[in-house]
Amino acid sequence: MNKYINLDNVKFLLFDVFKAQKLCELERYQDYDLENFNLLIQSTKDFGDKILYPTFKELDEQAAYYKDGKIIVHPVVGEVMRFAGANGSIGAYMDYEYGGMQLPSIMHSALSHIIQSANNSLPGYIGLTSGAANLICTFGSQELIDTYVPKMLAGEWAGTMCLTEPNAGSSLSDLTTSAELQEDGSYKIKGQKIFISGGDHEYCENFIHLVLARIVGAPQGTKGISLFVVPKNRINSDGTLESNDVTTAGDFQKLGQKGYCTTHLVYGEKDNCKAWLVGAENKGLKYMFQMMNGARIDVGLTAASTATAAYYASLQYAKERPQGRRITEGGRKNKEAPQTLIINHPDVRRMLLFQRAITEGSISLLLEASLHEDMSKCTSGEVRERHENILEMLTPIAKTYPSEMGRLSISNGLQILGGYGFCKDFPLEQYYRDVRIMALYEGTTGIQSLDLLGRKVVMKNGEAMKHLKEEIVKTITAAKKHESMGNASDDLEKAVSALEATIGELLNFAMSGKHERYLADATIFMEMMGTIIIAWQWLKMANAAELCLQSDEKALNKEFYENKKLTMQYFFTYELPKIYSLKAILMNKDNLTIAEEFPEAFK
Amino acid sequence: MNKYINLDNVKFLLFDVFKAQKLCELERYQDYDLENFNLLIQSTKDFGDKILYPTFKELDEQAAYYKDGKIIVHPVVGEVMRFAGANGSIGAYMDYEYGGMQLPSIMHSALSHIIQSANNSLPGYIGLTSGAANLICTFGSQELIDTYVPKMLAGEWAGTMCLTEPNAGSSLSDLTTSAELQEDGSYKIKGQKIFISGGDHEYCENFIHLVLARIVGAPQGTKGISLFVVPKNRINSDGTLESNDVTTAGDFQKLGQKGYCTTHLVYGEKDNCKAWLVGAENKGLKYMFQMMNGARIDVGLTAASTATAAYYASLQYAKERPQGRRITEGGRKNKEAPQTLIINHPDVRRMLLFQRAITEGSISLLLEASLHEDMSKCTSGEVRERHENILEMLTPIAKTYPSEMGRLSISNGLQILGGYGFCKDFPLEQYYRDVRIMALYEGTTGIQSLDLLGRKVVMKNGEAMKHLKEEIVKTITAAKKHESMGNASDDLEKAVSALEATIGELLNFAMSGKHERYLADATIFMEMMGTIIIAWQWLKMANAAELCLQSDEKALNKEFYENKKLTMQYFFTYELPKIYSLKAILMNKDNLTIAEEFPEAFK
Repeated sequence: MNKYINLDNVKFLLFDVFKAQKLCELERYQDYDLENFNLLIQSTKDFGDKILYPTFKELDEQAAYYKDGKIIVHPVVGEVMRFAGANGSIGAYMDYEYGGMQLPSIMHSALSHIIQSANNSLPGYIGLTSGAANLICTFGSQELIDTYVPKMLAGEWAGTMCLTEPNAGSSLSDLTTSAELQEDGSYKIKGQKIFISGGDHEYCENFIHLVLARIVGAPQGTKGISLFVVPKNRINSDGTLESNDVTTAGDFQKLGQKGYCTTHLVYGEKDNCKAWLVGAENKGLKYMFQMMNGARIDVGLTAASTATAAYYASLQYAKERPQGRRITEGGRKNKEAPQTLIINHPDVRRMLLFQRAITEGSISLLLEASLHEDMSKCTSGEVRERHENILEMLTPIAKTYPSEMGRLSISNGLQILGGYGFCKDFPLEQYYRDVRIMALYEGTTGIQSLDLLGRKVVMKNGEAMKHLKEEIVKTITAAKKHESMGNASDDLEKAVSALEATIGELLNFAMSGKHERYLADATIFMEMMGTIIIAWQWLKMANAAELCLQSDEKALNKEFYENKKLTMQYFFTYELPKIYSLKAILMNKDNLTIAEEFPEAFK
Repeated sequence: MNKYINLDNVKFLLFDVFKAQKLCELERYQDYDLENFNLLIQSTKDFGDKILYPTFKELDEQAAYYKDGKIIVHPVVGEVMRFAGANGSIGAYMDYEYGGMQLPSIMHSALSHIIQSANNSLPGYIGLTSGAANLICTFGSQELIDTYVPKMLAGEWAGTMCLTEPNAGSSLSDLTTSAELQEDGSYKIKGQKIFISGGDHEYCENFIHLVLARIVGAPQGTKGISLFVVPKNRINSDGTLESNDVTTAGDFQKLGQKGYCTTHLVYGEKDNCKAWLVGAENKGLKYMFQMMNGARIDVGLTAASTATAAYYASLQYAKERPQGRRITEGGRKNKEAPQTLIINHPDVRRMLLFQRAITEGSISLLLEASLHEDMSKCTSGEVRERHENILEMLTPIAKTYPSEMGRLSISNGLQILGGYGFCKDFPLEQYYRDVRIMALYEGTTGIQSLDLLGRKVVMKNGEAMKHLKEEIVKTITAAKKHESMGNASDDLEKAVSALEATIGELLNFAMSGKHERYLADATIFMEMMGTIIIAWQWLKMANAAELCLQSDEKALNKEFYENKKLTMQYFFTYELPKIYSLKAILMNKDNLTIAEEFPEAFK
């Protein structure tokens, strides 16, 4: 089996950078300790090694497909659901009272990273079931919880999230699926949902769809959207199941993640589809955001994990493939010498460092976000708000940076293999295909960027941004104590100032009423801010590595920590400088993309 | 049928920007005129419409494969070879004396662009046969020409280029295929070649392989490489064919271009494979560079053409798909209004302008390169040398920029379609896969970048670079006459100075003996210089558009030319500023990618 992850990295992040073991001092997590955490890491890796990685390629070759009203998937899907049900991982981060393991989110994310590196699509079936169960527990009635959650956590029933409709993709306010209150307190639902991941297959006896719909007579727009539980099969009072008029109308054949079915569902074709309201009427979108924000972190993790596996695949090739010779002083090559391994060529090293900088920086950001989630669960008042604010700020970036840059990272990995990278004999081409969805799932990059610049940066009068900045300053201050960080702390300080100046300039557009122009280049702003946030993570990792180097009790050898510092230096040298060009681009006054200014542009 | 190209763009480039019609005043091209050119454009488009575009998707679905010693391809391959043979396009740019059409290269490239936009892999079968025939005509004996070329130009026999071996990919100096002189003047050849495009199929009765091999006793390295003609079948004196012991040992299953077979060939398994030397011994690599340089231009063209087709596919979607609403003054959306077409969202316009800027800029560069090829054929002495120098400078960029940026352009196109872009129902996902090979074919981006910085920039003591700069200055000077160009001419002038300063700084490494460091970031240098070269092309196009606008006899409507200027402005606003960050990166003194400095980096 090829290496797809390095657990040393995972442990370094968890225990040296983010001190996840300290969470065990909090009441909520008091049943855990470092030893438990390490056991979980190892058993999750075993799951990856034994079931997930070995089926990674098979799932691609045996794509899920639709036939006669059914979706056919690889049998491992059932195996995985049952396994995850048995070992408790579907409810990993959920509260004890609902049957969960009450594991810290940061640990849950680290474990997800391991399994997603082994296989970027199978964990989706688990993750959606988790997210749906958690949503029911948070906002649903006790009856809904009792009816659905135990079977879901056991992996017998699967969960999904149903938002997109054929004519309402990114624009949820236009969704038309309707729900009509019935005398028994349930609703009759009618409509279609597309792009539903894991929406149907033969290995779970029931599917619990969490569906956004509009109650008849509800207000237009997002304010009239409610959230419903719509089971594929209704549960009779004796516990038997009965069809609930949810039809699988088709599937989508895709570029990648082929083993992960994407379905088209129709509710109420026979006017007999029952739904149960979750929480209050017309609050559906707000509730769904809990699952969506979780899913955004999860997509970021999957992107970073796919890129991690790709990194190790290209690293292995680079260490085994001899080709060409190094250039010696004087500019010549020694033709008499045997060929060198390609890892010794600067261009290959640069590509490998790029991959490592992107993937490890991304994972670090995702764990950072998860830690704020944990802390917000264990704190109150202003402290809690601070953690929530930071999490809100980081979520669109944690989804987007790994998705966009992970794709480039994998493309670089493919490049390292030369012509072989384009061939099916190596896994890079599959990673290149699989990762492409990440910038589309759960709100495209464009949507995430609008969220970041249009909502997050300005939320609470800039307070969330201020809290985030204070966190970054803490890292800069810590770095200034270490001489070996060189100019990195100054570089990051300067970059944060550039970011603030950019925001200030852009806000002038908004303040003069030009809101469309304010947001026009939000995607470029995302690229700029994402790069700075990852630089922050690298400085944080380098600080931790430096402390490990200074310590007498190092968990790992010296080279490991030196390499972290080297990769930080790579990021600051090759990536961070790009923000200044992005700043210049964002400052443009041309309005080239505003339809009113250039109405004929695409005639 | 979907639109895959806009012929107005092709004609604008040929006749307004590059004045291809003026070539007809030269003796070599005197049989042509504007009318002929237009007829050729139209008939080529018909070929694209009727045969190439309709089979684009089928070729992907019915991938070429290997079975029982044979390669099975879609029957359209035979149709295309016969059609190209009948209409003369295999020998389009070759001299009359060899049966060619003696068409200017710039016209040939423009026609290739049309058919490659319709189908990015089928034209490869034609292009390789052209290139191989042309190589035999340039360097081979009259006997070789008479024996092979007529059947090749007729499309009955196919040509290939055989360089790569399992252990000699980018490092050609390590190839081991051997050739031993026989009494009859032929050679006995033994060895294996991999990644041979179009290497075998049932629709041509013979394959004429142009093979690099080492004559027994030849010097090591590239100085001992000779070029041979190795037919699949030998031609008996009565014209019948007899097997020449060339075995098809397998094929490669790929990410994209699946209908374009990639083969593994074995020569002389039964010790009975005859080869004929082309030109002189040990000059093979030099000869092969004629075909390779042609193929590099062709790969750039294919990348740009694939991205062109992807651009029109995403443009069409953006013009038809309603989703969301524009943000009005005050930052609100009018929920009562119907959804707007996504082309009206700034983020979508930015992505479309990006695609257009990349693709049209790339095609312009490729035609520029071809024009210098034409001019070098029709001039002599210093003028000729100047054209040759500029072509040498531009070739690695013309191959690499479209390949690298075309990939990003297509990825943006896919993004415009949202989730549908990831699905097989739309062609974007195929373009995304197909284009990935372009940065690997005919020398990877790393190899092209070493060629640019290590050879071209410094060739003839910088004379070629000087000639290229003079061309750019001509365009800047012309732009300064047009007020409507705004700051663009100054911006390009400043960018060229930045490039020169960067080269100067980098040369310090070489001059102090640090050659490996000089070349370490060649790929980033390529990105910087490529961006500047495309900015030059855009300024040139904008100049031509401005002249058309000022003229009373416009071939096209006003909007067409205004849009060219808009896209120029886009490129200067959103792309050109990136070179300053790249410059800062190139100036780094860290040596992070030099193996000697960080020997433990990938432990």
